[in-house]
Amino acid sequence: MAAVPNHPYFYGADWNPEQWPESVRAADLDLMRQAGVTAATVGVFSWSRLEPAPGAYDFSWLDRVLDGLHAAGIGAVLATPTASPPPWFTLAHPDALAQRRDGVRLVHGSRDTYCVNAPAYRAASRGVAAALASRYAHHPAVVLWHVHNEYGTWCFCDHCAAAFRGWLRARHGDLAALNEAWCTDFWSQRYGDWAQVLPPRATQYLTNPAHELDYRRFLSDSLLAAYAEQRDVIKAVAPEAQVTTNFVLGGWVPVDHARWSGQVDMVAIDHYPSSLDGAPAQSAFAADAARGWSAAAGHGGEWLLMEHAPAHVTENGVQRRKPPGMLARIALAHIARGSRGAMYFQWRAGRGGAEQWHSALVDHPGPGTRLFREATALGTRLADLERKGTFLTPSVEEGAPLNPSQVAVWFDEVCGWAIGASHLPAPVDYQGIVEGWHRALWRRGHAVDVVPPAARLGGYRVLVVPAAYLLTDTSARRLAEYVRDGGHLVVTYLSGIVDEHARVRTGGHPGALRDLLGVRVEEFDPLSAGESLVLDSGDVAAAWTEHLTAPDAAVLAAYPDGRPAVTRREHGAGVAYYVSCGLDDAATARLLAAVCAAAGAEPLVPDLPEGVEAVATPQGLWLFNHTDLVHVIGGRDVAPGEAALAASPGAPSPD
Amino acid sequence: MAAVPNHPYFYGADWNPEQWPESVRAADLDLMRQAGVTAATVGVFSWSRLEPAPGAYDFSWLDRVLDGLHAAGIGAVLATPTASPPPWFTLAHPDALAQRRDGVRLVHGSRDTYCVNAPAYRAASRGVAAALASRYAHHPAVVLWHVHNEYGTWCFCDHCAAAFRGWLRARHGDLAALNEAWCTDFWSQRYGDWAQVLPPRATQYLTNPAHELDYRRFLSDSLLAAYAEQRDVIKAVAPEAQVTTNFVLGGWVPVDHARWSGQVDMVAIDHYPSSLDGAPAQSAFAADAARGWSAAAGHGGEWLLMEHAPAHVTENGVQRRKPPGMLARIALAHIARGSRGAMYFQWRAGRGGAEQWHSALVDHPGPGTRLFREATALGTRLADLERKGTFLTPSVEEGAPLNPSQVAVWFDEVCGWAIGASHLPAPVDYQGIVEGWHRALWRRGHAVDVVPPAARLGGYRVLVVPAAYLLTDTSARRLAEYVRDGGHLVVTYLSGIVDEHARVRTGGHPGALRDLLGVRVEEFDPLSAGESLVLDSGDVAAAWTEHLTAPDAAVLAAYPDGRPAVTRREHGAGVAYYVSCGLDDAATARLLAAVCAAAGAEPLVPDLPEGVEAVATPQGLWLFNHTDLVHVIGGRDVAPGEAALAASPGAPSPD
Amino acid sequence: MAAVPNHPYFYGADWNPEQWPESVRAADLDLMRQAGVTAATVGVFSWSRLEPAPGAYDFSWLDRVLDGLHAAGIGAVLATPTASPPPWFTLAHPDALAQRRDGVRLVHGSRDTYCVNAPAYRAASRGVAAALASRYAHHPAVVLWHVHNEYGTWCFCDHCAAAFRGWLRARHGDLAALNEAWCTDFWSQRYGDWAQVLPPRATQYLTNPAHELDYRRFLSDSLLAAYAEQRDVIKAVAPEAQVTTNFVLGGWVPVDHARWSGQVDMVAIDHYPSSLDGAPAQSAFAADAARGWSAAAGHGGEWLLMEHAPAHVTENGVQRRKPPGMLARIALAHIARGSRGAMYFQWRAGRGGAEQWHSALVDHPGPGTRLFREATALGTRLADLERKGTFLTPSVEEGAPLNPSQVAVWFDEVCGWAIGASHLPAPVDYQGIVEGWHRALWRRGHAVDVVPPAARLGGYRVLVVPAAYLLTDTSARRLAEYVRDGGHLVVTYLSGIVDEHARVRTGGHPGALRDLLGVRVEEFDPLSAGESLVLDSGDVAAAWTEHLTAPDAAVLAAYPDGRPAVTRREHGAGVAYYVSCGLDDAATARLLAAVCAAAGAEPLVPDLPEGVEAVATPQGLWLFNHTDLVHVIGGRDVAPGEAALAASPGAPSPD
Repeated sequence: MAAVPNHPYFYGADWNPEQWPESVRAADLDLMRQAGVTAATVGVFSWSRLEPAPGAYDFSWLDRVLDGLHAAGIGAVLATPTASPPPWFTLAHPDALAQRRDGVRLVHGSRDTYCVNAPAYRAASRGVAAALASRYAHHPAVVLWHVHNEYGTWCFCDHCAAAFRGWLRARHGDLAALNEAWCTDFWSQRYGDWAQVLPPRATQYLTNPAHELDYRRFLSDSLLAAYAEQRDVIKAVAPEAQVTTNFVLGGWVPVDHARWSGQVDMVAIDHYPSSLDGAPAQSAFAADAARGWSAAAGHGGEWLLMEHAPAHVTENGVQRRKPPGMLARIALAHIARGSRGAMYFQWRAGRGGAEQWHSALVDHPGPGTRLFREATALGTRLADLERKGTFLTPSVEEGAPLNPSQVAVWFDEVCGWAIGASHLPAPVDYQGIVEGWHRALWRRGHAVDVVPPAARLGGYRVLVVPAAYLLTDTSARRLAEYVRDGGHLVVTYLSGIVDEHARVRTGGHPGALRDLLGVRVEEFDPLSAGESLVLDSGDVAAAWTEHLTAPDAAVLAAYPDGRPAVTRREHGAGVAYYVSCGLDDAATARLLAAVCAAAGAEPLVPDLPEGVEAVATPQGLWLFNHTDLVHVIGGRDVAPGEAALAASPGAPSPD
Repeated sequence: MAAVPNHPYFYGADWNPEQWPESVRAADLDLMRQAGVTAATVGVFSWSRLEPAPGAYDFSWLDRVLDGLHAAGIGAVLATPTASPPPWFTLAHPDALAQRRDGVRLVHGSRDTYCVNAPAYRAASRGVAAALASRYAHHPAVVLWHVHNEYGTWCFCDHCAAAFRGWLRARHGDLAALNEAWCTDFWSQRYGDWAQVLPPRATQYLTNPAHELDYRRFLSDSLLAAYAEQRDVIKAVAPEAQVTTNFVLGGWVPVDHARWSGQVDMVAIDHYPSSLDGAPAQSAFAADAARGWSAAAGHGGEWLLMEHAPAHVTENGVQRRKPPGMLARIALAHIARGSRGAMYFQWRAGRGGAEQWHSALVDHPGPGTRLFREATALGTRLADLERKGTFLTPSVEEGAPLNPSQVAVWFDEVCGWAIGASHLPAPVDYQGIVEGWHRALWRRGHAVDVVPPAARLGGYRVLVVPAAYLLTDTSARRLAEYVRDGGHLVVTYLSGIVDEHARVRTGGHPGALRDLLGVRVEEFDPLSAGESLVLDSGDVAAAWTEHLTAPDAAVLAAYPDGRPAVTRREHGAGVAYYVSCGLDDAATARLLAAVCAAAGAEPLVPDLPEGVEAVATPQGLWLFNHTDLVHVIGGRDVAPGEAALAASPGAPSPD
Repeated sequence: MAAVPNHPYFYGADWNPEQWPESVRAADLDLMRQAGVTAATVGVFSWSRLEPAPGAYDFSWLDRVLDGLHAAGIGAVLATPTASPPPWFTLAHPDALAQRRDGVRLVHGSRDTYCVNAPAYRAASRGVAAALASRYAHHPAVVLWHVHNEYGTWCFCDHCAAAFRGWLRARHGDLAALNEAWCTDFWSQRYGDWAQVLPPRATQYLTNPAHELDYRRFLSDSLLAAYAEQRDVIKAVAPEAQVTTNFVLGGWVPVDHARWSGQVDMVAIDHYPSSLDGAPAQSAFAADAARGWSAAAGHGGEWLLMEHAPAHVTENGVQRRKPPGMLARIALAHIARGSRGAMYFQWRAGRGGAEQWHSALVDHPGPGTRLFREATALGTRLADLERKGTFLTPSVEEGAPLNPSQVAVWFDEVCGWAIGASHLPAPVDYQGIVEGWHRALWRRGHAVDVVPPAARLGGYRVLVVPAAYLLTDTSARRLAEYVRDGGHLVVTYLSGIVDEHARVRTGGHPGALRDLLGVRVEEFDPLSAGESLVLDSGDVAAAWTEHLTAPDAAVLAAYPDGRPAVTRREHGAGVAYYVSCGLDDAATARLLAAVCAAAGAEPLVPDLPEGVEAVATPQGLWLFNHTDLVHVIGGRDVAPGEAALAASPGAPSPD
C-alpha cells in the first residue's frame, strides 16, 4: 500500500506550481507545512510544460518542485500528464483527436481532446510516461503515481471503429454470435461482414441498446488498456512503484470502475456532490462504493479520496458554500469509511483558465481566510489522529465483511449503462435509485457496504438490489445462493430484466429472479411525474408500479385494486422480498426497519436523529452531526457540527 | 378493395418471425389462431435477412413464414423492406445515406438511413421489391402489399439538391417565377442561376418560409415517387395486387397524406396518441382524417388502421398503460369509423433492439396475460360481428356525405407546414387547433368528417375551417360557393392569410375570405401563455385576438373595448361566421351549439354525457363509454367501458 | 452631422422598393409624404438586385428609387448591401462563408452568411460599395450612408484563424506574453508556436475565458476593419459623405460599440426591447447608452435611432402589440434623449421572406389602420416640433456633462463578454444587472448617463458601477480619482475582479478596488434562484452575497450573521459605497435615495409617480406618462399616455 513517509494519511491537494512564479511556489511549501499537508498531486495537465515540443522534454521545473516537496517533508503524488495533450499534438496528429458521434473532430482549447485508440496518442502517452518514470521513479518525494486524470473521454473515430471490431471479435467470437447478442434482426441491422460494424455514430433515430452497451464496455476497456500501458511503463523502471488513477463518478463516464479496481494499486476516487444538503449522504455513498470496489478487487477495502472541492458544492449551476465545519466533517467521514486520506482539488486557485472559479484551499484572497484556517485545523486534527493511531488502516481479514452492520446495497455501473441505452417505458435514474436505498439505510444508522456484482455476499444479513435491470445468469445464481444460505434479500422493480446483452428475459418479469421471488410480473405500469398511490399498508408508491401475481410468495402490501405490490418469500434459510413499486422515504424506512429487524441487522445507533451520521471504525463508533442542533445520543450531547469518536455509544468521546 | 379471404376484417399485427426460432414461430401461429387473428404484416425491416449481401437474396425463411400463415388461414400483409437498408448499404453507397441540414451524413445503426433521391437507394429498393414481387405476387397468403414503412425521412444532400431543382423547374417554370413566388428580394436571396438553388441547409439565421414549404412538398413528392416505383414493380408482376403503405401522422413528417391517398389502393394509417386521457378523441380525429382522405381520393371512405399500440400510450416520455377494456374499445371505435380492421404494432415483443419495450399482443411474459386475454376476446368479438354482418363496409354512394351528421372540419397538412415554416407573431399548433374543434364536435355527439381541401363540401350543413393559414384561391372560391349554396361556415383566426407560396394576401386579413366573412382584420394581437380575456358574451378568449372591423357582418360577441370578436354574415343561402380569437372549451361548445342548431345539424345523441362517444355506422348507432360510470342514454344503461351497438337511441343493444 | 435637408429629424423607416412593383413604389412615396416621413433607408440587403451576377451591376431600379425620394423631398439613407451576399457568392467562394465552431460551413438561405476575414468577401464588399459610391455619392437624395447592416456575424474558419494569429501578435507581442495573458499553463494549453493558436472551436469541455474574450475582441476589430474599408471607399469618392452603420444591441453580438463609436460619423442603434411592460425603461437605457457612446467618442451626445419596431414588442416569442399612443411616446422619448430622429424597421411589410410578420408602418392591410394614423400623427408632431425648434440638437459644450442630473451608470460590453466567457460561481446576467440600476434611477426621475469606461467622469455627482467584473488598471485608477475629487461612487458585487485578460486579481476581492472601498472579500456566496435573506437594515438581498471584512469602511447594512453587506468609505473629497449583494427593487431605491441625497443629486421631478418618465432636454423637462392614469405633477394633470414638454415643473406644457 502506498503511504506518505511517516504520514499514514494523504492530506493535501492538486498543486500546479507551473502556473506560478518561484516566489509563490516557495510560499506554497511554507503554507503546506503550516496546514499540515502531507501530500501534493503534481503534474496533472502539465504536458505542454514537460514536453513543449514533440520529444523535447523539460524537467527542470519539476525537478525543483519535487526537490522542494521532499525538503518540506511532503510526499508527491506524481501524475502523468496525458489527460490533456498540448496544442502541438493537434497539429501533429489530427487523426488522434476525439471525434463526436456526428463526425465533428474536436481540437485543443479545453482538456481531454484525444482518441484513446489512436496509435499516435498512445505512443506519445507512453513516451512522456516513460520519460517521467525514468527520471523520477526513484525520487524520494514520490509516494504514489497518478496516471492520467479522470479517464472518461468518448470517441467515435475510425481508429475506434477498427479497435471496436477487434474487441467484438474477442468478446463474441463470430459475427453470428454478435448478431444474436445484439438482436440485429430488429430494424435490419444484421451484419454480413465485420467491416460493417461501426461505433454508434449519428444515425436517423433510436439506436440499438446492445450496440451502445458494448461500445461503452469497449471504451472502458480501451481506456483501461491505455492506463495499464502507462502503469507498466512505470513499473518497468520501478517495480515497487505504487500506481493508480482517479475514478470520476458520473453517469456519462465510460469506465467500469469495479473492473478497473483490479488494475490499480489503490482505488482512488474524485467526488463532487450535486447538492449541498445531499452532500453528506452522497459522500457516504461514494465512499462506500469505493470501499466496495477496493474490497472486491482484493485491496482490503482501503481507498483514497483523491479529489474533492474545499469550499463549495455546485448545485444546479450555483456554487453553494460549505458552511463552517463542513470541510473537516466531510473529510473525516470519508476517512472513517476507509479513505487513506483527504485530497482536494485544488491547493491554490489559478488566476485564469476554465476553472479559475473552482474553490481552493488557498483561494484567490490568499491564506488569510476562514477556509484556510479550517484547512489548517483539519491538518492538525489529522496529525493528532495519526499520533493516536485512530483510523489506521484496519487489518482486514480476507473475506470478512467490511463493516459490522452486515447490510449491503448492490451497485453495478454497467447496469446503469444498460438502463441509459435502453428505451424504457419511463425515464429511470439508476444511480439515483441505488443512492436512495443507500441513503435510507444510512439515515437509519446502518453502516452500509456498496457492493459490485463480484463482491462476496456471504457476510451480509441484508442485501438490497435496486433496479438491477441487467443481471447476468451468474449474478442471479449468486443471489439465490445468498438467500438459500440465510440472507435477507430485497429486490426492487426493474431488476433481473435483461441479460448481459440487454436482451429481455422472457416468460414473466423479473426473468432472472422470478423463481427466487415467487412472483410473476405481467406489465410495467410506470407513473407520471408527481403521480402517486397509496398501498393497503398505508405506504405511498410513486414513479413505478407493476401488475404481478405472487404464485409463490406472501403479499406484504397490495395496490388499491388488491394486486400484490410488496411480497416476501422464504427460500432455504433466507428470505427474498420483492418491491414492485417506487416507495417514498417513509415507506422505504418502514420496510427496511421490518426487514432489518427480521434479519437481525441492527443499526449502529438506535433511533439515530435525522442529520446525524454514524460510522463504524476499527477504533469504535464515530458520529457526525450535520445539523445545527445539539443531539443527545447514548446520554451524551453531540454538538452541532461535531465529528468525533464515541468509543461506545453513551461514553464521552476520547478524541 | 383488399380483403383477407373469408375475413372482412384485418385483425392482427406486425410480426417479425425472423427474430425468433422456428419453435416460437410455430407457437405464434397457434396463438394467432387462438386470438382470432386474420392478418399479419411481415417483412417490414427484413432487408438484411432478405438480401444479406448486395444482390444475394434469401427467401427460404419467408417462404416458410408465408406458407405457415396460409396453412393457418391467416392473410399476409407483405411488406417491402426498404425502410431500413442493411449495413452493407452504408459501405457500398456512402452517397446514398441521409444527410442532415448541417451536412452530417448519417449511418446505419437505427432505421430509415437513406436518401430517397439517391439513385443507388432507388435501384436497390426496386431490386428487392421486384424480387419479392416475382416470388410472392401469387402466393395465396398475400392479401395486401405494404410498401416500405412509415415514409418520412428527410435529407439535404446533393442528390436531393439536384432533384429539388428539377422539381422546382416543373413547379415554377422559370427562375423569375421562382424568385417571385419565394419573395427572394427579401434578404438578397434572388437566384440568378438554377445551380444556386439548394435545400434549406444550415444557415446563419431565420430561413425563408416559401423555401422550406416547397422543400417539404418536394420531399413528399420524392417519397411518393419512390413508393409509386415499388408499387408499379409489384403491379407489373401482379396487376391485381392491392398495394399500400402506412401513413405516419406527425407534424415532422414530410408527407402530404391527402395527396398520397390517390396513389394507394387502401388508405392505411398508424396511430399513436400522445396522452392516455386524450386517446379516444385523438383516435377519433385520426380515423375521421383517414376516412376523409380515402373519400376525397375516391376510395369511398374505407381505410385501415395498420398500426397502433396494444397496451400503452406514451405521454411525456412515460408509457401509460391502457386500462382494461380500452384495447377493444379503441379498436372498435376505429372500425366503426370505417377502418377495415385493427392492426397492431406488434405481435410479439422482441427481446432486443431499440423498441424492445414497445408493447405487443404477446408481450415478454408470453400469452398468459390480461392483455392477451383481451386480444383474444377482441378477436372473438370481431368474428362475431363478421357473422352478423355488422360493420361490413358500407356501399358508399359516390359523392354522398360519409356520415349522417353533416358536420365537417377542414384539415390540410400543407397548411400546417406553412405555419411551421413561417415566423408567426406567436407559436401556433395547427393540428392542435384543428383537433380542438374536432373534439368539441365529437364531445357534442356529432359524427364529424375531417376533410382535405379537395373534398366535396356540398353535403355538409356545418363546416369548420380552423387556422387555415394557407388557403389557395381555389379553396377560397369553394368555401364561398359552399356558403352561397346554403352551408354554414365557421372560420377561425389565422385563416386565409397566405397564398400557396406562403405570401401574405394584402389589403386586410383574412385576405382570401375577407369579402365572404364581411370583416377586415387590421392587426393580430396574440396573447401570452396563460393570458385570457372575457368577451361581452361571457365567453373566455385566449391564445389569440385580433383587431378587426365588421363592415359587412353582424357582431355576435365583442372584445372588452367593444370591437368585434365573433361575427356572422349571411351570404347566398348560407351563413359565414368568423371567430377572431381562441375560445376555451365552454365557449367553443356554446358557439357550436348555436351554429349547429341554426344549421339544423343535430348530434347523433342529444345531451351526450362527457366521455361517451357516439359513432354512426350503416348498421346503426354505436356507443363507447370511456368512463368508469354508468350513463343512461335513451333510457338504457350504458355500462362503464361498454362499446356496443344501439340500433336506435333508447333501444337495447342487439350486440 | 448628417441631416435631412430642411428636416432636422430623421423620421422614416427601412424601405424595400425592390420587393414591390412600380405602382406600389409610387404609392409609397405618396404615403410617406402623407405621414411626414423625412428619410428612408434603402439598399439594405439589396445585393442580389444590385449585382445579380459577379461584377455585373444593375443600378437602374435604384436610380429611380433615389430620384423618386428626391422628388418627394425625402432624404435617402443609402445602405451598402454587404450584410447578405447573394446566392452566387456561395457558389463562387465556398471558402468565404461563415463556419460554426463545430466546422459546419453555413450557406445562403437566410442573411449574414459570410466570413468577415475572407479575402473574397472583403473584395466583393469593397466592389459593390465602390460602385454605389461612384454612382450615388453626389446624388441629391443621399443624406447619410449606412454601411452593411447590424454587424455581428461570428466565424471560426481558417481565414479567421490566420487573422486571429496576426491580431494576437499585434496585441500581445510574443507568444510568451500570450501564454502569460491566457494562463495557458492550466490544462496544458501552452502554445509553442503561433501556428498552434486556433479560434475557440468545438472542443471537449470548458473553454479558456481569455481565449474566448480575445476572440470576441478580434471579431469586433475584424468587423470594424470591414466597416472602415467601406467607409473609406465611400469617402474616397465623397470626402464630405456622412457614414455610419447601425449597432445591434444584444449579448451575443461580437461588437464593442464603445470602440466603434469613434469610427462612425453618427452613432446609430437599433432597438428591440424584450418585454412590453419593460419597453420604456429598456428604451431609456438604450438611448442613454447610445448617447454615452456618442459623447465619449466626441460626437457630442447626438445619435440616431436607426431601427425600432412600429407596432410590437416580441416577448418570450409572442408579439405583444404596442397600445395606442405608445408609438409616439417611445419615439419622442428617444428623441428627447438625443436621438436625431426615429427610424423604423420597416416601412411596408413584405409579403414573403423570414420577416414577413415583422410589423411595419404600412402593414399588410395597407395604410387605413390605426397604426398608420398614429404614424401620420407622429410625423405631424415632429414637423411641429421642428417648427418650434424644440429638440433641436443642443450645442454640447465640449466635455460638459450631457444632462443636468449628474448621475451615471458604468456600462462596458467587454465586461459582459468576460462574464459570459468565464465559468462563474453562478449565472450572472451582466446587462440585466446594469439595466436594473439604471432603471432604479430612471424610476426615481433622474436623468441618467450610461457611460463607457472611456467617458469623462468629472461632472457626475453619483456614479454607479454594477458588476464591473473586468476592470483595467486604468479604469480602477480613474474611479479612485473620481472619488478623490468629490464623486460619490456605488460599486456592486463582482466588480474589479479580473484584469483585461480575465485573470483574477489576487489578495482579496475586489482586487482593483479593494483599497478604494476599504473592504476585503474572502468568499463569493451566490444564492440559489428564489433564495433571499434580510439584512439588518430590513433590506432584502438575493442572487449574490459575499463574505467580507470592512477594515477601512463603515458598515451601512449587515448580513444576518453580522458580517458587512453594504459599506461606505470616505476618500478624498468623495465617498465610495460597496454593495456586496443583490438587492431587490425597494432596497435599491432606498440605497440610491440616500446616496443621491448625500451627493446632492436631485431627481428632475420629486416623487415622480411610478410609470411616469421625466427627460431633461435643452428646451426643458419632458414628461412621458406610460400609465393609464392621470397623474398630478407640479400641480398639473398629466394625461394617460401623454408625452409633452413641461417647461418647468408645474407650468402647463407649451407643446
